[in-house]
Amino acid sequence: MAQDNLTALLKKPKDLQLVQTPIPEIADDEVLLRMDCVGICGSDVHYWQSGACGHFVLKEPMIMGHEASGVVAKLGAKVKNLKVGDRVAIEPGVPCRYCEFCKTGRYHLCPDMVFCATPPVHGNLARYYKHAADFCYKLPDHVTMEEGALLEPLSVGIHACRRAGLTGGHNVLVLGAGPIGLVTMLSAKAMGASKVLITDVLQSRLDFAKKLGADATILSTKDISEADMVKKIHELLGDQPDVSFDASGAQATVRMAMLATKSGGVAVLVGMGAPEQTVPLAGALAREVDIRGIFRYVNEYPIALNMVASGKINVKPLVTHHFSLEETLEAYEVARQGAGIKVMIHVQPRDTNNPKQFQP
Amino acid sequence: MAQDNLTALLKKPKDLQLVQTPIPEIADDEVLLRMDCVGICGSDVHYWQSGACGHFVLKEPMIMGHEASGVVAKLGAKVKNLKVGDRVAIEPGVPCRYCEFCKTGRYHLCPDMVFCATPPVHGNLARYYKHAADFCYKLPDHVTMEEGALLEPLSVGIHACRRAGLTGGHNVLVLGAGPIGLVTMLSAKAMGASKVLITDVLQSRLDFAKKLGADATILSTKDISEADMVKKIHELLGDQPDVSFDASGAQATVRMAMLATKSGGVAVLVGMGAPEQTVPLAGALAREVDIRGIFRYVNEYPIALNMVASGKINVKPLVTHHFSLEETLEAYEVARQGAGIKVMIHVQPRDTNNPKQFQP
Amino acid sequence: MAQDNLTALLKKPKDLQLVQTPIPEIADDEVLLRMDCVGICGSDVHYWQSGACGHFVLKEPMIMGHEASGVVAKLGAKVKNLKVGDRVAIEPGVPCRYCEFCKTGRYHLCPDMVFCATPPVHGNLARYYKHAADFCYKLPDHVTMEEGALLEPLSVGIHACRRAGLTGGHNVLVLGAGPIGLVTMLSAKAMGASKVLITDVLQSRLDFAKKLGADATILSTKDISEADMVKKIHELLGDQPDVSFDASGAQATVRMAMLATKSGGVAVLVGMGAPEQTVPLAGALAREVDIRGIFRYVNEYPIALNMVASGKINVKPLVTHHFSLEETLEAYEVARQGAGIKVMIHVQPRDTNNPKQFQP
Amino acid sequence: MAQDNLTALLKKPKDLQLVQTPIPEIADDEVLLRMDCVGICGSDVHYWQSGACGHFVLKEPMIMGHEASGVVAKLGAKVKNLKVGDRVAIEPGVPCRYCEFCKTGRYHLCPDMVFCATPPVHGNLARYYKHAADFCYKLPDHVTMEEGALLEPLSVGIHACRRAGLTGGHNVLVLGAGPIGLVTMLSAKAMGASKVLITDVLQSRLDFAKKLGADATILSTKDISEADMVKKIHELLGDQPDVSFDASGAQATVRMAMLATKSGGVAVLVGMGAPEQTVPLAGALAREVDIRGIFRYVNEYPIALNMVASGKINVKPLVTHHFSLEETLEAYEVARQGAGIKVMIHVQPRDTNNPKQFQP
Repeated sequence: MAQDNLTALLKKPKDLQLVQTPIPEIADDEVLLRMDCVGICGSDVHYWQSGACGHFVLKEPMIMGHEASGVVAKLGAKVKNLKVGDRVAIEPGVPCRYCEFCKTGRYHLCPDMVFCATPPVHGNLARYYKHAADFCYKLPDHVTMEEGALLEPLSVGIHACRRAGLTGGHNVLVLGAGPIGLVTMLSAKAMGASKVLITDVLQSRLDFAKKLGADATILSTKDISEADMVKKIHELLGDQPDVSFDASGAQATVRMAMLATKSGGVAVLVGMGAPEQTVPLAGALAREVDIRGIFRYVNEYPIALNMVASGKINVKPLVTHHFSLEETLEAYEVARQGAGIKVMIHVQPRDTNNPKQFQP
Repeated sequence: MAQDNLTALLKKPKDLQLVQTPIPEIADDEVLLRMDCVGICGSDVHYWQSGACGHFVLKEPMIMGHEASGVVAKLGAKVKNLKVGDRVAIEPGVPCRYCEFCKTGRYHLCPDMVFCATPPVHGNLARYYKHAADFCYKLPDHVTMEEGALLEPLSVGIHACRRAGLTGGHNVLVLGAGPIGLVTMLSAKAMGASKVLITDVLQSRLDFAKKLGADATILSTKDISEADMVKKIHELLGDQPDVSFDASGAQATVRMAMLATKSGGVAVLVGMGAPEQTVPLAGALAREVDIRGIFRYVNEYPIALNMVASGKINVKPLVTHHFSLEETLEAYEVARQGAGIKVMIHVQPRDTNNPKQFQP
Repeated sequence: MAQDNLTALLKKPKDLQLVQTPIPEIADDEVLLRMDCVGICGSDVHYWQSGACGHFVLKEPMIMGHEASGVVAKLGAKVKNLKVGDRVAIEPGVPCRYCEFCKTGRYHLCPDMVFCATPPVHGNLARYYKHAADFCYKLPDHVTMEEGALLEPLSVGIHACRRAGLTGGHNVLVLGAGPIGLVTMLSAKAMGASKVLITDVLQSRLDFAKKLGADATILSTKDISEADMVKKIHELLGDQPDVSFDASGAQATVRMAMLATKSGGVAVLVGMGAPEQTVPLAGALAREVDIRGIFRYVNEYPIALNMVASGKINVKPLVTHHFSLEETLEAYEVARQGAGIKVMIHVQPRDTNNPKQFQP
Repeated sequence: MAQDNLTALLKKPKDLQLVQTPIPEIADDEVLLRMDCVGICGSDVHYWQSGACGHFVLKEPMIMGHEASGVVAKLGAKVKNLKVGDRVAIEPGVPCRYCEFCKTGRYHLCPDMVFCATPPVHGNLARYYKHAADFCYKLPDHVTMEEGALLEPLSVGIHACRRAGLTGGHNVLVLGAGPIGLVTMLSAKAMGASKVLITDVLQSRLDFAKKLGADATILSTKDISEADMVKKIHELLGDQPDVSFDASGAQATVRMAMLATKSGGVAVLVGMGAPEQTVPLAGALAREVDIRGIFRYVNEYPIALNMVASGKINVKPLVTHHFSLEETLEAYEVARQGAGIKVMIHVQPRDTNNPKQFQP
């Protein structure tokens, strides 16, 4: 096995370096992966720029990367679900398997979760990386390594829809047309939403959302009152939304989710907002609009893979930029500027492990 | 208003006649409808041939028809949701609105349900028919009267999927590729099923199902053992089905639903089976496979309409035969022979009320 | 039938009068009731003092009263569920029976709800009152008229618990030990909560709660920090609460419900709070603590009656004051001062209709 | 540590012996337990008498016992939730922690489950036994070792009620008044059932059920028709049961659960029935009565402990017979004869580890 293990290490805020690190040793229930695709997420940019995201704070140097796919290079003694050479998507969080949350099927809430590139845990933007074998999902031949990496953000969208109880015939409002808003929209449509209205402050994002399947869009501007915005949403959607998703985290959109949702509906807040927010809670609750948050995803990787493999969801158009591992800093800079949707880093030359070429 | 009210009346078993009946008087919460499309259902054929279906028995002459659409001709004094000229789909059952079932949102279980063409209640295969205004759903211009009539069987499929808790990524088995099996398959796919395997005893039905979107099919034959059939289903589906639907009612398929479904999954029995059945219940229940039946539909008409109007479900190909009201007997004979999928009776000349032509 | 129909009419804010009104005429699906017990609710006091409660505003004189029981005096032509002389609890809201909310089993959200003593609808604090027969629930002989009237606030508590998904073994936090906090606590215990901790700003209320079955209590004081209060709650409860109920509506307790609830748990906000609130929403949602409001109750009257009739819930101790209809103003004054828990007005002499004497 | 490890070993059907076995070595996530109480279950008697229970078959000698409590004697290196001397209830099944079922919170369906005294896995009727630390639940001082052992059957009852969606105000039918019927009844009442009717073929069992809290009982006899039995159940319960539990497994009671349950209700089949049964399935399903089975329990031990510790459920009266480990054969013989309800084997002298004496 090659000794090269080039690794993207965040030494401290604003100091991201490519360095060599030792190839990890695996435990009996782990696999060693030769990494392939690693996408850049908003949180990655946050850690890079500020050293923090939410209440997680960088204290030691940390390897970046958590939206990833790779190829199995070595098997732990007890691994049965995979074999060497398998192309896999990597669910980046491994829970303790022992606590109340793990046992009740909500392992994403496990307080001892070990999650890639969330301080103090290292990520997988490197030539080699080891991971719990049961959190690696074998990709069918027709699913590309890029799609494998995109299962990560897609799982967030699917989790949001499952938390919403989204089902056939629902009319849906998505506030925010960034990557998370888009995967939520894609998930909602695939799970039966009949109409999705998406809003954003940038027309370019709305144009992109429209191409991806949004049924209607509204450009949010500061001069429109909350009451008028609610009215406009209801008119364009042809009904009040059964489910609203805030995929922005801004107080304005959190408020809109509460105001615009149909009585008895659900407002899911997907975006990470400010710790304290001033919101019209009483009005929403008196109409029995349920307010639900989401934290990552749980048991959604297999669903995301099924949806992509069966062609029900096409995530390929989300990838707007490609870089090699050596170009990591450039890739992060593009992600920081927010020019495209998803920036993909190729640890190996493009299509090395794709039976079919990746064509977005 | 024209005095012609040609009506398809089942006088007694095997004696279906076209007769003139009085145009009904409407109550304050009702509308008078000039009927347009009325599909023929398996139960219609049962009543016609045997005078009974399940525990419902024909005792008096009964007007046929319950899969229907029409145009509002007259409004009751209190009707606000519709206006004269509105093209509507007709949900054929009107519950009492007062009982425990009506109040808890399960009005389809209302013991005082008044349901078209279910003895002793008359149906709507006639020039004119009156109905509770709130069980008439206005069709958008681009939805045809034929599609309006097809919301009835489609609602059964959607109800089956909702009862199953079907959601994104589910692998699904449908046993029986008749009209109900097909609408269940269409609903399952629209609500996020990633793979649907459908079985039948007729290859022609499987071919049709394949065209409509089935991912895999199995021709059921008598020479295959239950264990082998289970194995074949799991192999072709690539997994055990999360949800199985029996859309046949035969004991063999009810048994297969119990045997083939994944542990912890759901087997929904959509077909009307024999009163007494010998089944491997203990095995299914020890694996916590839930057994659920369905009775018609409840609150699914608006969903079905949303799904059709948004293009998520295309029911048009289901209509394989067209007849005029005057050709009703011929239409029933074709339905009885089971040649096609759905036989549609046009009470008015085709496309009279369709802004766009109906093209299956 | 007697012509006396002494009635408690709120002419305008602070102007509550006893006047004679005509005995109402009943429709076919209604009954005329000879009223017996009518409790006073916080909202009644709000209307009396300020002419408003939430977004409901008094514009015309309004008859008070909505927590009530009575005896059937006359039947509408179509009424079958009751007979003259039946002692009934009165569910005070009658929905339209036609809208989406009524059909889906959430009739409490019906926009055309007619609800006693909610402007502009009259209440039932009078000698005679008419009501939809299907919203009157016959009391078994051993259930008193006082208990019948108390089904109204109890239904709020049961609705809160059902909305919370409360079930066996849950540890529960109730913030606020007023009437609504108490019925929520009683409901929670009856539905399987293993431990209920209740908080209030008044020690006297906590003492009362303790007598009613609270497992632990905390006196809220201004000098304790939020973090310390959370810690104290977790210590005294022996765990983090699976479900928290805010039965106060104050921003401080709404915040505490969000902060103290276990990850993955539910915070139900029962109290009517200020329209705008500043809350630590992001933290609660990132732990997937669901925030749910409640609006009155729906389908809970039969449950409340079952719980009281079977002895699983004893609401009798909640009645701390008794007045006759003629003493209505005095009763309202006592309720305004908040001295006791529930003030009961007896439209007829006490125990007139009770086969067994009411003994709290 | 003592070298005595007297152990109840089932060598082959009908050959149960007390032998010495080596004290087990523990892994890092395990504890060694000095056993205290071990109850005898119906399945134990089956293995003893016939060498099989359901599809599990004895092929090698197996140590008996799975309803048990013990005291921690030694800790694995990574164990943090317990300390030496802790008195614990032992959840007897330890799943793989890696499969789909384990991750989705349904670990009881894990195909690699290791479950005490289910061939080929040894049980815990011995002086010493090792177990996964996280499946040991520390008992509060006031909960006895006997109650700790009884959490096992109680968990079955709670699982049945949770699977039924049982909640406040439900009317409940329990068919069969053996140990499982009784724990189901106790659980149902603690979770809010307002009325429980229980049936059995033995009057003595009904008398016992009545003492434990049954609201009504019916002695099943062969001369009563199914229709009459249904009628009698509805009359005595005062309503149709929202939930029915079959705790017998006999075809007659499985049928009754299907026939007697209210439309839209749930029939839970708790008993292990014959592989093939002839049942009136179509009628139940057409009324949307859901049929659900149960397999052991999942995440119910903590709930059972909460219910017992808080006094909401009193399981003590279930213990009708006490024996020492040395008297194991005699104990099994009493269990086989079915004289009492629960036979308890004391591996240590009674009350050795009970801060308070056990008084049924």
